[in-house]
Amino acid sequence: MSHKQFKSDGNIVAPYLLGLARSNPGLTVIEHDRVVFRTASAANSGNKPKVTLVSGGGSGHEPTHAGFVGEGALDAIAAGAIFASPSTKQIFSALKAVESPKGTLIIVKNYTGDIIHFGLAAERAKAAGMKVELVAVGDDVSVGKKKGSLVGRRGLGATVLVHKIAGAAAAHGLELSEVAQVAQAVNDNSATIAASLDHCTVPGHKPENILGDDEYEIGMGIHNESGTQKSSPLPSIPELVAQMLPLVLGEDEDRSYVKFEPKDDVVLMVNNMGGMSNLELGYAAEVVSEQLIKKYNIIPKRTIVGAFITALNGPGFGITLMNASKAGPSIIKYFDYPTTASGWNQTYHNAEDWKVLADGKVPTAPSLKTIKNEKPSGVKANFDTFAKILLAGIERINEVEPKVTWYDTIAGDGDCGTTLVSGGKGLTEAIDDHSLRLEDAAHGIEDIAYIVEDSMGGTSGGLYSIYLSALAKGINDSGDKQLTVNTFKKASQSALEALYKYTRARPGYRTLIDALQPFVETLNAGKGPRAAVEAAQQGAEKTRKMDALVGRASYVAKEELRKLDSEGGLPDPGAVGLAALLDGLVTAAGY
Amino acid sequence: MSHKQFKSDGNIVAPYLLGLARSNPGLTVIEHDRVVFRTASAANSGNKPKVTLVSGGGSGHEPTHAGFVGEGALDAIAAGAIFASPSTKQIFSALKAVESPKGTLIIVKNYTGDIIHFGLAAERAKAAGMKVELVAVGDDVSVGKKKGSLVGRRGLGATVLVHKIAGAAAAHGLELSEVAQVAQAVNDNSATIAASLDHCTVPGHKPENILGDDEYEIGMGIHNESGTQKSSPLPSIPELVAQMLPLVLGEDEDRSYVKFEPKDDVVLMVNNMGGMSNLELGYAAEVVSEQLIKKYNIIPKRTIVGAFITALNGPGFGITLMNASKAGPSIIKYFDYPTTASGWNQTYHNAEDWKVLADGKVPTAPSLKTIKNEKPSGVKANFDTFAKILLAGIERINEVEPKVTWYDTIAGDGDCGTTLVSGGKGLTEAIDDHSLRLEDAAHGIEDIAYIVEDSMGGTSGGLYSIYLSALAKGINDSGDKQLTVNTFKKASQSALEALYKYTRARPGYRTLIDALQPFVETLNAGKGPRAAVEAAQQGAEKTRKMDALVGRASYVAKEELRKLDSEGGLPDPGAVGLAALLDGLVTAAGY
Repeated sequence: MSHKQFKSDGNIVAPYLLGLARSNPGLTVIEHDRVVFRTASAANSGNKPKVTLVSGGGSGHEPTHAGFVGEGALDAIAAGAIFASPSTKQIFSALKAVESPKGTLIIVKNYTGDIIHFGLAAERAKAAGMKVELVAVGDDVSVGKKKGSLVGRRGLGATVLVHKIAGAAAAHGLELSEVAQVAQAVNDNSATIAASLDHCTVPGHKPENILGDDEYEIGMGIHNESGTQKSSPLPSIPELVAQMLPLVLGEDEDRSYVKFEPKDDVVLMVNNMGGMSNLELGYAAEVVSEQLIKKYNIIPKRTIVGAFITALNGPGFGITLMNASKAGPSIIKYFDYPTTASGWNQTYHNAEDWKVLADGKVPTAPSLKTIKNEKPSGVKANFDTFAKILLAGIERINEVEPKVTWYDTIAGDGDCGTTLVSGGKGLTEAIDDHSLRLEDAAHGIEDIAYIVEDSMGGTSGGLYSIYLSALAKGINDSGDKQLTVNTFKKASQSALEALYKYTRARPGYRTLIDALQPFVETLNAGKGPRAAVEAAQQGAEKTRKMDALVGRASYVAKEELRKLDSEGGLPDPGAVGLAALLDGLVTAAGY
Repeated sequence: MSHKQFKSDGNIVAPYLLGLARSNPGLTVIEHDRVVFRTASAANSGNKPKVTLVSGGGSGHEPTHAGFVGEGALDAIAAGAIFASPSTKQIFSALKAVESPKGTLIIVKNYTGDIIHFGLAAERAKAAGMKVELVAVGDDVSVGKKKGSLVGRRGLGATVLVHKIAGAAAAHGLELSEVAQVAQAVNDNSATIAASLDHCTVPGHKPENILGDDEYEIGMGIHNESGTQKSSPLPSIPELVAQMLPLVLGEDEDRSYVKFEPKDDVVLMVNNMGGMSNLELGYAAEVVSEQLIKKYNIIPKRTIVGAFITALNGPGFGITLMNASKAGPSIIKYFDYPTTASGWNQTYHNAEDWKVLADGKVPTAPSLKTIKNEKPSGVKANFDTFAKILLAGIERINEVEPKVTWYDTIAGDGDCGTTLVSGGKGLTEAIDDHSLRLEDAAHGIEDIAYIVEDSMGGTSGGLYSIYLSALAKGINDSGDKQLTVNTFKKASQSALEALYKYTRARPGYRTLIDALQPFVETLNAGKGPRAAVEAAQQGAEKTRKMDALVGRASYVAKEELRKLDSEGGLPDPGAVGLAALLDGLVTAAGY
């Protein structure tokens, strides 16, 4: 969460609901009443009647509740202002919208204002002849039994499980009392603990009572309610989870609401309070799973991770455990049942799918061993000759390095020369220990590509390696029996084309392409390797007059580039280096 | 985003991937290579071959990319460290994991490091005899044509559209070149602009270069890259959207990459950069839709809203528009196609579903008119007698108010008395203008319940109104022809039972229940209304000796409660008020 906020008058709930309906075309909005209902659940929709589910509450917890309106979940919700219960009239409007001859289950989070308003709406609906039942959700174990004996636990993650599971029960055709029983059973067998680094910020309001810079709070509610303790310093996620799990597992007798045994079918929900990155949330989920399995021998039968019931942008997360074995025989089946509610993100709907996780181990595959082409290309080369040519090229790189480095210090970050030298060093070592397959021209160049990537690194290492890999493929495909200048002609051209897929640099852009393309073109024009090298050198020289257009050199003013007027301007160091390399190779090859 | 962070060594990517697989049982993880692949897409899975899709990139953008591995989307991804490209070996590992005889499409975001590494992996794969093509995604219009001519646009929201749409194309059996063409077409016809209130924070790193307290940035990238402009002061969301839309719609020629006409089929994605609340994100989505429709006459054919490609906890959002008409005839069909990828949250899969939004208006229903029971209960009452009794009760409330207020000032927030008086005032006005249906006992009490809720408000207004609503239902169901003491007996009991569903307060907890329950019990014991009133008064008196257990009084020390020792202790003001009311009513009724 940021303490920076968009300017807001706070009137964002009704537009939010309209926006939700624009991305969920099965929804209808009663704008004035801030009600959203499933169009197909409308009292007059002509659908086969089923028990309907109505929920709602204060806003700021999205996707709860509106994001759970959908087939197989809720039928309607009424949304209050941020953190404030909707009025009885709003709730009654939601009830009326999806009135069903089979009755309606009202699901409400256990907060005083919500209980009163939803309760009153329920009693009014009964007085008006409607069939309704109400289940209040309370799962927050931060409210101990003594302190909370008269107010009960607050509704957190279990709210979402009740929406989903009772919704599936209703979709299965259960009667009102049965659906209510399912909802109650889910609630009674769920426990949640949340923790946050800070309070959330409410749009249109200045941040209040934020925690200290070094403080976090376990048991924080979704309206910034106080938890069980504030602590410092800020913990790692594994440290925090180790503090949270004993609470949710009921190790503290005053907070022991639900018991979990290794044999039980347990559902794990890890919920983003809104402001945590998805990366850290997913990491936290894995830490929770690992600790549950290793410390407690509890292997969750189902795991669901996401932002389900938020505290606006609260930088924390909640852990909800539900004991499905105790909640009833069909609970897992209802959990798995599909829904169109966009707030739910579980896409696996068959019990069979989940069997791979039954042992508590994630399906894994072994790491890849470096895979090189083992099939001979048929293009033979002489190891010693090939090695001699390579070493000559490397020597030229070493000679030209100080100058290249100097150029790059002016126009770049100064590592162009040393990067080339590193590549040469890597290759020299590989030649020395005979780990390059230089007796096969394609294999040899493939191996060089690997070495160059590793030893040079960075963008230039990558570009060299791409070119060499494509060159190896071209040589492999040449059909030649022996590596000759002719073998290189076509392969050097196709490799250049491959390289052009990954860089937009072309001649004139002050890069090594200014040397490479003339080399390839001249070779392919049949003018021989020496002419090709000269073309590369001329290309590198031409960069002295070019504007900086790409890569790091872009950030240098034209004036800086012209510091070397006596030499004719600053050339691109990469082009100079490549031209020197090519000169060394071609000379050693006898051209 | 918070600048507060969990302690972290930054090594959270591999555990994140394992966690993802725990909630997505169709995935397999190659932990060492940080690769996730769809188990059913494994090279040896025996499934009917299809073109496979491989993507990946730096971490910190979740659910991109791993969250898009699933049926109908990606087949494998390789994840780098936070904001760093995966290595060529990692990518090659992903390619090998889902190698297919029909070939593999590589999808990579257009960032230099990613392009080089994925490009190199592609060329290696080709050299190793595999069939691969690569499409680079770049849709960020914050990179203008001049500045970006050689680096191109950065990959943002279109990445996700390419994952989803090309994935569906592959699932439809298209050939590699065709799937690549679909991916390229989606990219070429997409434009994105993002804006953020601040940089995101990287786990394990101190926040760097954060924006000023009053500053925001349009065009910020998903690695905190600079955008087109920093501005201040902080805008409202409608103000910000009004600045963003001209950019994404190409009104600035240098950023005009895709054109959109009212007749085009346009897909709108509103993407959370990670740290915005879902409420504000959904609000922003509606603002975008409204401005698109009203200012530009563009009605999105499909809208999708969520956190798809994040910048960790970046407090901002992106707007992506895709011109599906220009991208090709099957694009919308592929968009709608189902997927098991948990990162996608669109659950409507039929073109038919979306027709309700074709006119740009959200389906709405009229607001509920206050609905009261119109069917006569059959339990007749005399308007004048009923009104006289009510007014007498109200008079007693007014008399006792100063004392009740005094009690409540000591033990509560001091509004108990005035709340009761407000209720009385509302009722008196309703009696004066004859808006209460007092000639029907059930209707009359139902109407009183409405007045009491509105005029008293708060928890006590709600509890009174619940009791009265349930009382009205009991009277309605009594079958009596005339309102008598007997009618009240059973109804007062069932109403108490209804009330007990919404409050845990019971006698002994120092609330109005200490007066109400004895009244109901005594009435039902057949001892008559006068004895019932006396029981209520005694109940209220008893609260003088009770500890505070529920509601606001809980926060007061026992010592404070005993300040009134001369009177016998502090009674609960709510109980005293109710006992006085009952006394007034019963006395006026002649008992």
